[in-house]
Amino acid sequence: MDRRPTIADVAKRAGVSRSSVSFALNDRPGLAEETKRRILAAAQELGWRPSRPAQALSRGVAGALGLVLARDTAAIGADPFFPAFIAGIESVLARRGDALVLHVTEPADEEATYRRLAADRRVDGVLLTDLRVDDPRPALTGELGLPAVVVGDPGGAGGLCAVGLDDRPAFAAAVRELAALGHRRIAHVAGPQEFRHARRRRESWELAMREAGLPEGPVLPGGFTAAGGAHATRELLALAPDRRPTAVIYANDLSATAGLAVAQRLGLTVPGDLSVVGYDDTPLAEYTHPPLASARADALGWGAAAVRALDEVIAKGLADDVALPPAELVRRGSMGPAPGAGEADAPAPNTTTVRSETPC
Amino acid sequence: MDRRPTIADVAKRAGVSRSSVSFALNDRPGLAEETKRRILAAAQELGWRPSRPAQALSRGVAGALGLVLARDTAAIGADPFFPAFIAGIESVLARRGDALVLHVTEPADEEATYRRLAADRRVDGVLLTDLRVDDPRPALTGELGLPAVVVGDPGGAGGLCAVGLDDRPAFAAAVRELAALGHRRIAHVAGPQEFRHARRRRESWELAMREAGLPEGPVLPGGFTAAGGAHATRELLALAPDRRPTAVIYANDLSATAGLAVAQRLGLTVPGDLSVVGYDDTPLAEYTHPPLASARADALGWGAAAVRALDEVIAKGLADDVALPPAELVRRGSMGPAPGAGEADAPAPNTTTVRSETPC
Repeated sequence: MDRRPTIADVAKRAGVSRSSVSFALNDRPGLAEETKRRILAAAQELGWRPSRPAQALSRGVAGALGLVLARDTAAIGADPFFPAFIAGIESVLARRGDALVLHVTEPADEEATYRRLAADRRVDGVLLTDLRVDDPRPALTGELGLPAVVVGDPGGAGGLCAVGLDDRPAFAAAVRELAALGHRRIAHVAGPQEFRHARRRRESWELAMREAGLPEGPVLPGGFTAAGGAHATRELLALAPDRRPTAVIYANDLSATAGLAVAQRLGLTVPGDLSVVGYDDTPLAEYTHPPLASARADALGWGAAAVRALDEVIAKGLADDVALPPAELVRRGSMGPAPGAGEADAPAPNTTTVRSETPC
Repeated sequence: MDRRPTIADVAKRAGVSRSSVSFALNDRPGLAEETKRRILAAAQELGWRPSRPAQALSRGVAGALGLVLARDTAAIGADPFFPAFIAGIESVLARRGDALVLHVTEPADEEATYRRLAADRRVDGVLLTDLRVDDPRPALTGELGLPAVVVGDPGGAGGLCAVGLDDRPAFAAAVRELAALGHRRIAHVAGPQEFRHARRRRESWELAMREAGLPEGPVLPGGFTAAGGAHATRELLALAPDRRPTAVIYANDLSATAGLAVAQRLGLTVPGDLSVVGYDDTPLAEYTHPPLASARADALGWGAAAVRALDEVIAKGLADDVALPPAELVRRGSMGPAPGAGEADAPAPNTTTVRSETPC
């Protein structure tokens, strides 16, 4: 291993003390110009450069942002939003050579992790994702003096800058189109209601149902997981025929894809017997059979926008909330006419449009 | 924001110079015991603790490991191995409060990113994933004096410690069982052959075909992507009946899931007309329709083992290669008897076993 030159090496070469080198490199007064010039020349000849920790000490910046995920590892492994969001963060950081410092913690260790990040001055700020109802983190980061932005809607952000997008238009479009296809019993398989985004998706579905003049269908928890989506779907399909939904809107693609498989294993056809809509428009959505209608939220752009907002908070102490383009319904083959819907009732809108980049 | 106490604060409270404080805190000789005691008491009263960068300077460690992904962001967003592997890394780092420093770069910026990580002393070592044929990184990290381990097989690791697992048993089991089900034309949809792991999977399939006494079937590139898997499957299914495969083993689940959907859209049944096997055993594999047979490699355990090996390299300068438990075939409903295989030729082995935790 080539040893990096140290201040001692520079001192030796320039024939001065180490503290003189430190004075020269930090441009502090007190050295003769000729001495300073000699020291800087020696440093250059040796290829000396300050270490990042030394720069952080002197400039007071870490050159890194932090992301703490208080989730179990299996959930992170299955979450298709996460890697795309990370990629969006990196798309901004990579350009300036900054790093993302990633911590995955037990929920019980979450607070300690933020405290350590702040105490160690390892990051210049943090992105707060998966905001919970009564989330302690906005207050905690405030107490710690740790710049932070919330990835999500401004409600519950405790005055922090929030970078979010409106998912209501996607739910409204899904319900409106399903209603036009003759559906009246449209269920929702929800995410964990301690998360604000899961709660908002449920509220968006409720609002859409009211606006479409439909009675509120059943809501079951799907946990944002494949297993949860499968379980909820089995329960929905076991309901009496006059209560059983003819369409289900899921809180994410993972639960929707599992629900789709469950319906098919029970001998139902999709969309013939059941229409299915997901949320996230994950890479596999267009490759399920039939392709999964979903709501597209730009996870990559979201990550990039969150970093830019956090930059502003770090630089100025505050930033305006950012509203990203709202989530958009992506129509695919898993949406179809309600079973038994007369053709007069159900004109076939463009619900089976497959994105043109999908040539199969 | 509560200001963190500085060395100057400690010096003021103890009534000594800042350099005396520094001597005391770093346990360097030259101070009277009584002075040292007074300084340490003052530091404790003020709640002073060294900042992480200061510790890094004095101890020479960053308290962080690095992972550089030179892939385009869309590929990372779609890769189900990546988040589980990250979670495995974090499962070790989280316990000691260390961080993962994550960089996503353009391939053209890869070398510069490693150089910066080393120059900035931001990490104590790096994990090298997605090793390519003639990969420059083992030599580069050696040149930079940056401790590194290779996540993958020892071949091509350039003498670095390699943490890998053998995927041949899973391919051998898949081919053997497909052969027992009457299949003779078993194709492979491969990953990008510039990657050593993709090449090894292809070689594992070739070896398994030879061992089973089967003629080598067609190989098509699937790019590890859904789009690539779909494209390759369409090409395979367009072959003349005497050349068209009755089973396809894909290099990963993403391409296999897309292939499965393509076959169904073309009006084929799985496994009636085509058996499909993936690789990775991703969370959705048991929820495709039919459930996707796959090879399970423990991405979580892999991440953890890689960190432990890198710890050893950092501490001792070298470590033995680590062989993880080999990948294992997970039998699911996408494997079935070859079309037209007589029952005498194709005794039904346990190829439709669904893992017991999947109650649907």
